[in-house]
Amino acid sequence: MSETDQIAKPYYLFVGDISDEVIAKTALGIVQWRPSDCLAQTDASGAIDLGLPRMSPQAAAASGARTLVIGIAPAGGALPPAWISAIVEALEAGLDIASGLHIRLDAIPEIAETAARHKRQLFNVRIPSRAFAVGKGLKRTGKRLLTVGTDCAVGKKYTALAIHRALENKGIPATFRATGQTGILISGAGVAIDAVVADFVSGAAEWLSPDAPADHWDIVEGQGSLAHPSYAAVSLGLLHGSQPDAFIVCHDPARTTMTSTSYPVPSISRIIDLTIGMGRLTNPAIACAGIALNTSKLDEATAHDIIGETQRALGLPCCDPIRFGVESIVEELL
Amino acid sequence: MSETDQIAKPYYLFVGDISDEVIAKTALGIVQWRPSDCLAQTDASGAIDLGLPRMSPQAAAASGARTLVIGIAPAGGALPPAWISAIVEALEAGLDIASGLHIRLDAIPEIAETAARHKRQLFNVRIPSRAFAVGKGLKRTGKRLLTVGTDCAVGKKYTALAIHRALENKGIPATFRATGQTGILISGAGVAIDAVVADFVSGAAEWLSPDAPADHWDIVEGQGSLAHPSYAAVSLGLLHGSQPDAFIVCHDPARTTMTSTSYPVPSISRIIDLTIGMGRLTNPAIACAGIALNTSKLDEATAHDIIGETQRALGLPCCDPIRFGVESIVEELL
Repeated sequence: MSETDQIAKPYYLFVGDISDEVIAKTALGIVQWRPSDCLAQTDASGAIDLGLPRMSPQAAAASGARTLVIGIAPAGGALPPAWISAIVEALEAGLDIASGLHIRLDAIPEIAETAARHKRQLFNVRIPSRAFAVGKGLKRTGKRLLTVGTDCAVGKKYTALAIHRALENKGIPATFRATGQTGILISGAGVAIDAVVADFVSGAAEWLSPDAPADHWDIVEGQGSLAHPSYAAVSLGLLHGSQPDAFIVCHDPARTTMTSTSYPVPSISRIIDLTIGMGRLTNPAIACAGIALNTSKLDEATAHDIIGETQRALGLPCCDPIRFGVESIVEELL
Repeated sequence: MSETDQIAKPYYLFVGDISDEVIAKTALGIVQWRPSDCLAQTDASGAIDLGLPRMSPQAAAASGARTLVIGIAPAGGALPPAWISAIVEALEAGLDIASGLHIRLDAIPEIAETAARHKRQLFNVRIPSRAFAVGKGLKRTGKRLLTVGTDCAVGKKYTALAIHRALENKGIPATFRATGQTGILISGAGVAIDAVVADFVSGAAEWLSPDAPADHWDIVEGQGSLAHPSYAAVSLGLLHGSQPDAFIVCHDPARTTMTSTSYPVPSISRIIDLTIGMGRLTNPAIACAGIALNTSKLDEATAHDIIGETQRALGLPCCDPIRFGVESIVEELL
């Protein structure tokens, strides 16, 4: 994704008319991890507060914003027709556009023509800009950690970023490996793994975390869930290709059904069993290194209780990476 | 794949300089199941005998051939540069070209220009010609059977075609659902499932076998193996999306390592466990309906012995679909 290195900052974050924070996770992720790269926001619903000043595209451009980032991730990644006029307005105001949607911005004639007329750039960070080989299943040097989940959008990216930051703070060599649009926009590199042709998913994951020094950790952002009826194929290819030594199960205890389905959220134990059962194919030493709970919907006392209960029940370190840090998991890892 | 309905027959089968029958499975499959559609062959190695007269493209065209079919399936689907001149020669002789490779024929300038100059058609049957939605995981009406495998190229397509033919011969409503290039060339419809973007694999499999009458069987051609480090993602998306009521495990008892790897071939029991363990997500009633052994490398007495042993050991009907038919499996199914 060399293209993404060239995206001009600061960002003007666009969340359309979305009012669901789960769907606005791209915008929330960027502002959480790179606040100094974010200048302003716009949300037609008024329901998504990113903690940034709300501006028109003209005002954002006048204040120094360089790129409108489409900060939403609806299922399937299509672009609602109603948002096209807002994107055209931003191009006319002088902004580039970066999108993590499946559809190419330049496939929409009105957007392509306006960008050409105003000499603005369109970045499709979700569309891989290179070809991949099929997976080989060969062992690579260095150590790898993968975050997995009981569902989509339960904190796999946040957990990976938090563990990466904690390792760097301890002086341990580590690289965050982004596999989704938000991670790519945060880190400036990676592969949108769910946009890779199915035959090459494990090969792309192998390419993403190449041979490395023996003491180096690749911290690979997970995707989907092995138990999700829509996305398990992506999760499995990523698991086989990244051949992790360690994995962290990410889970939201307040959620009852998996995203965009009526399927119940599986137990943490079920995901541990599935991940070891399938993952040992390419790394027989795979082991669960901890549990990351997303307790954002619980009060602090309840959060501490459920973290303690989970830790005792499973005999593994447990934390909420965003709320209480990842120290216990990183200690176990080292 | 409406494009594929328009491929002109009879075929002129091209296997390049390949001498490995596993890699030439597309050509072998077409000639096995649609012999009357095949007029001639060409193989630079002289090692792949399809039972067809060997002809030059000029002679094949003069004898009535309409389309050169690239009858090979190398890992990853790339087109060796050495074959381009042979394809150009066929276009100049007046033939269309049909390819099951990942690479688009029209992406190769010499081929695209020659086809345009001679007004010949290029068919890329492995490249999906439509968009798919993400999988929904909703139960559909009708009955479904999926063939799965302990490896690639162990007889999943042959087994599905044989079961489909046996059901039709009994007057039971059934449809063969092709998921690979050979199956599509044989049946004239289907989705090259490994060429679908990973996010949409289970959705494509759902689209491929829609709601049907309660007594109708969709016989879905399997792909890869849940235990193959390169292709398990494809196999899992197909399993989740096709939500089979019954599956058949296909296995080659003479094979020791999985295709293009040094991984040992898993046991049949392991594949039964993996398929039920993962498949029950979208169909809790999933059950193994039998074992299809590919005994082509064994003598007849040994083949009968191993079929009998497998049947007793696993308590499931076992057969070699090509050599001895699928009667025992179909009886169990009904």
